[in-house]
Amino acid sequence: MILGKIIGNIVSVIKDENYIGKKLLIVQEINIKDGELIDNFYISMDLIGTGIDEKVMVVNGSPARSTEETKDLGVDSIIVAKIEGLFFEDREIIFDS
Amino acid sequence: MILGKIIGNIVSVIKDENYIGKKLLIVQEINIKDGELIDNFYISMDLIGTGIDEKVMVVNGSPARSTEETKDLGVDSIIVAKIEGLFFEDREIIFDS
Amino acid sequence: MILGKIIGNIVSVIKDENYIGKKLLIVQEINIKDGELIDNFYISMDLIGTGIDEKVMVVNGSPARSTEETKDLGVDSIIVAKIEGLFFEDREIIFDS
Amino acid sequence: MILGKIIGNIVSVIKDENYIGKKLLIVQEINIKDGELIDNFYISMDLIGTGIDEKVMVVNGSPARSTEETKDLGVDSIIVAKIEGLFFEDREIIFDS
Amino acid sequence: MILGKIIGNIVSVIKDENYIGKKLLIVQEINIKDGELIDNFYISMDLIGTGIDEKVMVVNGSPARSTEETKDLGVDSIIVAKIEGLFFEDREIIFDS
Repeated sequence: MILGKIIGNIVSVIKDENYIGKKLLIVQEINIKDGELIDNFYISMDLIGTGIDEKVMVVNGSPARSTEETKDLGVDSIIVAKIEGLFFEDREIIFDS
Repeated sequence: MILGKIIGNIVSVIKDENYIGKKLLIVQEINIKDGELIDNFYISMDLIGTGIDEKVMVVNGSPARSTEETKDLGVDSIIVAKIEGLFFEDREIIFDS
Repeated sequence: MILGKIIGNIVSVIKDENYIGKKLLIVQEINIKDGELIDNFYISMDLIGTGIDEKVMVVNGSPARSTEETKDLGVDSIIVAKIEGLFFEDREIIFDS
Repeated sequence: MILGKIIGNIVSVIKDENYIGKKLLIVQEINIKDGELIDNFYISMDLIGTGIDEKVMVVNGSPARSTEETKDLGVDSIIVAKIEGLFFEDREIIFDS
Repeated sequence: MILGKIIGNIVSVIKDENYIGKKLLIVQEINIKDGELIDNFYISMDLIGTGIDEKVMVVNGSPARSTEETKDLGVDSIIVAKIEGLFFEDREIIFDS
């Protein structure tokens, strides 16, 4: 799983019926090592109700289809959790929400 | 999911029966950060009826098989939506169609 | 999907029973942008009967298992179509076969 | 599979029900060639009960869903084994635990 | 599929029951273009009974779960065949075993 910050959303005229009513967010990746933003961007389907500036955990690839909600969906990126912080042996990174 | 612009199509003498009657389009990736074209190209199966110059959302990899239409298909890239714009906290990118 | 040119084949003493009788070809990737060969090589299972010098479309990753023929096979790359050409708005690339 | 060292854990306010009660660890990748740490980091779900400093084997991508425990989970990285050492023809790397 | 040479094995205190009794080998990738070793390393599950120095074909990612033996296993890399040689139009690479 990767970490990211919600930085926007996407508006689409959706034709594939599976996407109707689903919220698609723009996520910028967070470096797990130091908690800093890096230059990778994802469009992910929100499963948990997040919003701008929140720090989240994202599942990419095929496993994004494994949840009850996305089972029959052609979706390759989902937001599954809000993140509070990273705890290392000698330091911690607390995300403000 | 990634974003892209439809820039062409591909003509194939298709032998695998799963591909008969399916439209294969050439997609150039759009940078989610700034909406600019980047040098990545995909051949994607069109599920929604798009055409040259339209901005679309593409699902790559295994989830491309999860829709009703592609369930038993060996296809690793599908076009699932037309995109109107990206909305960030402090700016927006509107695609002209 | 990616494009490629068949440049060779591979001979294996195959032990996993799923591979018996299957033709494995060496594919060199073709740049979708300009039709030129690039330095990426794949070993792909031939589903359609191609041969040296032919230009083909290749499905990589998990979707390679989705066809009737590869359903229970541990195969991550299949050749699904012969390609005649790429058609862009302002130019076309015709492959000679 | 890749190798890694457990270097921390992540605290999340988890909303997707599949993640409730699951332990998410921060793994730093170990170079298989020489046993040294490299600058790749993963968030992986612990299936076996590991802790800080332990050397583990991680399964990434879709196969992370194949175990009995993760079958219906949207999880793309799992820790499946503790590693004692790597044995090459002419040398060995023993990890201290 | 990729090609590789078996260069070692890994000893693990395995906790996830799926891995009990399975042989995990260290594979160094072989460049398909020229048959030379390159600096990529994989830990792969051996399905066919190979050993040090043998040249093999490896299936990575989700398809590694598709065989009868790995169906319910969280495994992302399997060794499926021994390779004798690569045959191009104008040259051949024969691996000594």
